[in-house]
Amino acid sequence: MKKVVALVHNLFDDLELMYPVLRMREGGIEVIIAGLDKDASYKGKSGYPCKSEIPFKELQCDDFDGVLIPGGFAPDKFRQIPEILTLLQEMDQEKKMISFICHGAWVPISAKILKGKKATGTIAIKDDLENAGAIWVNKPVVIDGHLISSRTPADLPEFGKAIVEFLK
Amino acid sequence: MKKVVALVHNLFDDLELMYPVLRMREGGIEVIIAGLDKDASYKGKSGYPCKSEIPFKELQCDDFDGVLIPGGFAPDKFRQIPEILTLLQEMDQEKKMISFICHGAWVPISAKILKGKKATGTIAIKDDLENAGAIWVNKPVVIDGHLISSRTPADLPEFGKAIVEFLK
Repeated sequence: MKKVVALVHNLFDDLELMYPVLRMREGGIEVIIAGLDKDASYKGKSGYPCKSEIPFKELQCDDFDGVLIPGGFAPDKFRQIPEILTLLQEMDQEKKMISFICHGAWVPISAKILKGKKATGTIAIKDDLENAGAIWVNKPVVIDGHLISSRTPADLPEFGKAIVEFLK
Repeated sequence: MKKVVALVHNLFDDLELMYPVLRMREGGIEVIIAGLDKDASYKGKSGYPCKSEIPFKELQCDDFDGVLIPGGFAPDKFRQIPEILTLLQEMDQEKKMISFICHGAWVPISAKILKGKKATGTIAIKDDLENAGAIWVNKPVVIDGHLISSRTPADLPEFGKAIVEFLK
């Protein structure tokens, strides 16, 4: 059984976290929610609640087959947490799935793993992606090896499908 | 292409509406959101926004292959709207998909289409289901012919899968 860690912090985009989490569970993939602490409660931009099951500082690359990074304003916090950046760098080296949507792309930007890679995100951070050396692609889902990215909640049907197919 | 109408009103359960809607779209199914008016804005229990595309009074059974009824407190409104009850009765006669989750079960109860049928919903309305003549089943998803029902948001992965498989 494949296992993915999904990142949570306040002001996550409600559907960008919860849709892929539920979609992976439908696909038989185990999903663990990571936050600053264990059993901490977070609220999405629209108010949807989400509880963390494991703290960021306990995340080990070996324990997971991939990571899900939702959008909203939460990625502004994720990108400042060294354990998350280390996790992404290790997953990148081992070609484990790194999936991000909307403002979630800020996190692989700060992990410095996007140079020369095709990726997408919300139009608001197109400049940040290109300045990080990524090749911006304006499509609902962009797959470059183990990197899977989407733009907005409207892309979630295609984002979820791509994640589940990658992990099959 | 299959076409499903999803019902919206204030205080819908955010994920119980939005997860199946996105999941159906992934499966190539067209989903139309129906509310009291066209272009009306609604908010879920947690605050997630949703806009209606067609008014209830224009719903025609012939136009759809099925209906999605989310939970939350919105079904308390749905069950009082004659056009919705008529739609369910006609869909029931034509064996089109009628899917409902959590408190959504109130609507087929008021449409009087559950007598002798296996169904589920939140434990809070088990008595209402049984008093309507339904056979309560405590499982993540219950399928009795064209009736598909689930209990809570935790059942959404199985609910979404059952809906998409039924419509294939």
